[in-house]
Amino acid sequence: MNLKLGIEMHNFARKLWPLNRSLTGEGVRKTLRNISEHLPNLAIKSVPSGTKVFDWSVPKEWAVNEAYIVTPSGKKICNFSENNLHLLGYSTPFVGELALEQLKDHLYTLPEQPEAIPYVTSYYKERWGFCLSQNQFDTLENGVYKVFIDTKLFNGVLNYGELIIPGKSKKEVFLSTYVCHPSMANNELSGPTVVTFLGKWLDQTPKREFSYRIIFIPETIGSILYLSINHKKMKQNIFAGYNVTCIGDNRAYSYLPSRNGATISDDIAKHVLKWIDPNFVSYNWLDRGSDERQYCAPGIDLPIASISRTLYGQYPEYHTSLDNLEDVVTAEGLNGGYWAIRKALEAIENNKKYKVTTLCEPQMSKRGLWPAGFTDEVRLISDFISFCDGSTSLLEIANKLNLPIWNLYDVVNNLKSHNLITSNK
Amino acid sequence: MNLKLGIEMHNFARKLWPLNRSLTGEGVRKTLRNISEHLPNLAIKSVPSGTKVFDWSVPKEWAVNEAYIVTPSGKKICNFSENNLHLLGYSTPFVGELALEQLKDHLYTLPEQPEAIPYVTSYYKERWGFCLSQNQFDTLENGVYKVFIDTKLFNGVLNYGELIIPGKSKKEVFLSTYVCHPSMANNELSGPTVVTFLGKWLDQTPKREFSYRIIFIPETIGSILYLSINHKKMKQNIFAGYNVTCIGDNRAYSYLPSRNGATISDDIAKHVLKWIDPNFVSYNWLDRGSDERQYCAPGIDLPIASISRTLYGQYPEYHTSLDNLEDVVTAEGLNGGYWAIRKALEAIENNKKYKVTTLCEPQMSKRGLWPAGFTDEVRLISDFISFCDGSTSLLEIANKLNLPIWNLYDVVNNLKSHNLITSNK
Amino acid sequence: MNLKLGIEMHNFARKLWPLNRSLTGEGVRKTLRNISEHLPNLAIKSVPSGTKVFDWSVPKEWAVNEAYIVTPSGKKICNFSENNLHLLGYSTPFVGELALEQLKDHLYTLPEQPEAIPYVTSYYKERWGFCLSQNQFDTLENGVYKVFIDTKLFNGVLNYGELIIPGKSKKEVFLSTYVCHPSMANNELSGPTVVTFLGKWLDQTPKREFSYRIIFIPETIGSILYLSINHKKMKQNIFAGYNVTCIGDNRAYSYLPSRNGATISDDIAKHVLKWIDPNFVSYNWLDRGSDERQYCAPGIDLPIASISRTLYGQYPEYHTSLDNLEDVVTAEGLNGGYWAIRKALEAIENNKKYKVTTLCEPQMSKRGLWPAGFTDEVRLISDFISFCDGSTSLLEIANKLNLPIWNLYDVVNNLKSHNLITSNK
Repeated sequence: MNLKLGIEMHNFARKLWPLNRSLTGEGVRKTLRNISEHLPNLAIKSVPSGTKVFDWSVPKEWAVNEAYIVTPSGKKICNFSENNLHLLGYSTPFVGELALEQLKDHLYTLPEQPEAIPYVTSYYKERWGFCLSQNQFDTLENGVYKVFIDTKLFNGVLNYGELIIPGKSKKEVFLSTYVCHPSMANNELSGPTVVTFLGKWLDQTPKREFSYRIIFIPETIGSILYLSINHKKMKQNIFAGYNVTCIGDNRAYSYLPSRNGATISDDIAKHVLKWIDPNFVSYNWLDRGSDERQYCAPGIDLPIASISRTLYGQYPEYHTSLDNLEDVVTAEGLNGGYWAIRKALEAIENNKKYKVTTLCEPQMSKRGLWPAGFTDEVRLISDFISFCDGSTSLLEIANKLNLPIWNLYDVVNNLKSHNLITSNK
Repeated sequence: MNLKLGIEMHNFARKLWPLNRSLTGEGVRKTLRNISEHLPNLAIKSVPSGTKVFDWSVPKEWAVNEAYIVTPSGKKICNFSENNLHLLGYSTPFVGELALEQLKDHLYTLPEQPEAIPYVTSYYKERWGFCLSQNQFDTLENGVYKVFIDTKLFNGVLNYGELIIPGKSKKEVFLSTYVCHPSMANNELSGPTVVTFLGKWLDQTPKREFSYRIIFIPETIGSILYLSINHKKMKQNIFAGYNVTCIGDNRAYSYLPSRNGATISDDIAKHVLKWIDPNFVSYNWLDRGSDERQYCAPGIDLPIASISRTLYGQYPEYHTSLDNLEDVVTAEGLNGGYWAIRKALEAIENNKKYKVTTLCEPQMSKRGLWPAGFTDEVRLISDFISFCDGSTSLLEIANKLNLPIWNLYDVVNNLKSHNLITSNK
Repeated sequence: MNLKLGIEMHNFARKLWPLNRSLTGEGVRKTLRNISEHLPNLAIKSVPSGTKVFDWSVPKEWAVNEAYIVTPSGKKICNFSENNLHLLGYSTPFVGELALEQLKDHLYTLPEQPEAIPYVTSYYKERWGFCLSQNQFDTLENGVYKVFIDTKLFNGVLNYGELIIPGKSKKEVFLSTYVCHPSMANNELSGPTVVTFLGKWLDQTPKREFSYRIIFIPETIGSILYLSINHKKMKQNIFAGYNVTCIGDNRAYSYLPSRNGATISDDIAKHVLKWIDPNFVSYNWLDRGSDERQYCAPGIDLPIASISRTLYGQYPEYHTSLDNLEDVVTAEGLNGGYWAIRKALEAIENNKKYKVTTLCEPQMSKRGLWPAGFTDEVRLISDFISFCDGSTSLLEIANKLNLPIWNLYDVVNNLKSHNLITSNK
């Protein structure tokens, strides 16, 4: 397999790795600016803190200057500038001295994964804290620690990126991914990385049937905010789409349904994954955990499913410092994820309903379509035509023929060139 | 498990045990009067013999004064006053002397259950007879027997009991049980006993959503008669209900479908029984054998299913003197049967369609609904809300969540108190 | 089993065996004339060569006078007059001398079945050739062969037979079979033979509910031609039917669906075959290979399925000289095939929707329908009546009762004679 694209994506993810993404702040803006180098038409939007969005309001902006602890023996530990996971997300500012026992109320570890720094946030309850490995925690001496957290929570803005790629039809395909986790690979960078490169491909594809709406947002609050602004036109135009998350490791392919479970996004996702990896994992709605919670909420009801590699919560490195670009997310993993979603988008583009232009079977021999007896190719054409009744989609035909939809693209073109079929979608 | 109710029901069944119930007569009236001590609003109705009811007519009333046989050696046997099963149901009067061989034409036994007195009737062909155990039959000496049957078949009335408990809505839930078998326990007394106590509970429940129509009738002719009078308003109002029979032993739970098989009564019965006893027995329409035959007849088509313990015909004591209140029907059995149907009725009352009042997920943390991280309780609330689209019933949500509907009653109340859901039924 | 009919059919097939059937020509006409001796109302139609029929045109007529090869040693081989399979179907005329190596370009064998003469045609590309066994081929000496093919391809006619048997209703049942293969038994003669005898039976059955349209055609071009003339009225009237092919061996029963797969023809075929042979083979639409390709083509969409014995392509003798009337097609095989389709036609005739004339169960005892207790017969009547709601077909009831539809014909007649049911179809 050609990994050129996978390596490019992996390099791009490395570039985004150190930025301190969160719901808001400079890390998000830098990430979006990096993405816009690949997607020049990306609009970077700002929404003020405090803006009401459905049942929620946009949180304060969070800025981190520096944050660390000095041990009784004078060692600087949990230094934010070394690993942005060390600082509890949305920590309030604090400077002070605490005995170890008091400090422990503010420390987060994972006793069962003693080498991992956990990822912890406190968006909606103001507090401060540090995250560190259990191994490091176990070495902490008694005595007085100096805590230094130079952060700011202030009325600023929340940022997100939006890219609209117009097509022949106003009908839209939607892609959403999130840019709110600091240095983690599968459950963060794989998403914006793969979506950036899908956006590039779409932008360069001239004969797109549909329009594409692509957004890079902070999870939950970002999708609620985006829906609060756009849900009416989204409901009008979007007929398919995916939430893109955990799309970069090389261990599994996964499908998580829309709430409806039977939208075209679901049908295409299951079809594509079946033919890419018959062992793909099929989750259900109760396993959900990302922005499909909003896109498929009652009253919103967009047809958004998920195509992922190993899903959030399903791998040991999830939400820890171990979810990295060395051991978890790889060029192969990103490449596989990219192609799974690309094949889904291609299937959506090609999924028309065809109608044979003759009554009864056409005479194939007079058109040279019956070259040497009843070969597999003749059989395929003949089987395909037998379903071209104008009411069966290409996807449905592929499923009836038990073959991947992309095996039919040539047959369609061949028959179109003989004027033996027309499409009515 | 608290058996207080089971013991009360068992005591009530003992009280009804000796009464000579049949299609008509004093035994039925006494039974209904006993029931009305618990259900003061029970109306005891009378319909004259000969009244045309659809394809049938109300039979003559049957009265028994006494009935027995005197053996050649002067012993009184098959004495009706000792066990009302000894006399063939609806026996015509007869006084006379017969040789044993002639007498045998009028004797009924169960050779394969030699200790059991069978239960035999002859409603629609006039004849007389006695039922006795095969063991007793085998001791009969040769010689002349004196038969004495002091019964009467006359133009009287057929009686039944009817209780209407009005609710907020005119829509009705229907319960039907029968009072036409003499001293038998599971296939008779369990039904009126459990229904009497369900009626008491309903009468004392103040916030009933629906009205309840409860009848105590002789089987077959009683349901035909009741339908011939009431089927129009029944079809208009009844949307759920159960025929209650064989609901008192402690060996199994059973479900018998309505003819339609997919009414709300069916869905609720299967749901409740699955969560009470995953090994419950699921019968099909071809196994039917009680008044559902009339309630679900073509053109009647009421949504009536059955929730039972061990079903008629499925236990060895069925239709014999062995179907008693000692070995077959127990306080535990009645208690389990009562709660199975009560949980079904509660589910019918609670089975509304809820709609979340926010677009996108509500912010649970600001309402204290997200107390300490993503607990099972938070997950349950979140899953529940995700289905509150105004078109999915509580039962359907419980099935999607794979938990008993009653586990959701608290969640519903909690969310209602926060104005996060409304119901539209 | 009475084989009288099977033997008659086998004798008729023997009579048709030597005729040189093809798409056109004297062999077809003689075959149709033989059939019309059994079916005097059969209309033998002619359509001129070159007539446009949808995407096709009627081919030239083909006549064979004689055809053979003379070996270098003077032996006459591949003599058409000995076996009409020897000559490639639609061979052009040719007289000439060829060396063995050149001749081989015109010879067809089956190396894997060395005793079999293959069946080969070239309808739409003009060429000549001979078919012979691999064994004979292997004995061919080097040297110069004289080829003598006295055939003619000329503007003549294509013939087919059509029989319309009117019934009470204008609604039609359709039977189609083909008469275009030379001396082969299962994949040719079984079809017209069985259909001829079904036509005789239908013609002699006085109380037919439906009309019958029966055609004997060359495969593919014949069905396309027939549809091009008749498809509008066929679509209007035909509600069921079968393509009859490969219906004469005794090794299996087979079902091939219509394209729709859920027409009444499909339901009846599966029901009948299940009760005739629970091991019947169920093919799918992708296994199709005969005139259902046209009858079920998009835009035509007639409800035509197939009931067969061992299907084309599924037995080793298929399309060879081994598909004969000795080893493959037998009187037993034809008899079984005939009865399978006849039972299907009888089921179509009887498949009405019945409605009970009483509300609630009728009182069976007063009509003598409850002779001696709750017997299997009483249970059957009672079960049957419970489904007589005017919207459930006899076939659906038979499936609910899990018994063959023909077991209900007596029940229906019995209940009709008591005026307990009416039919509304």
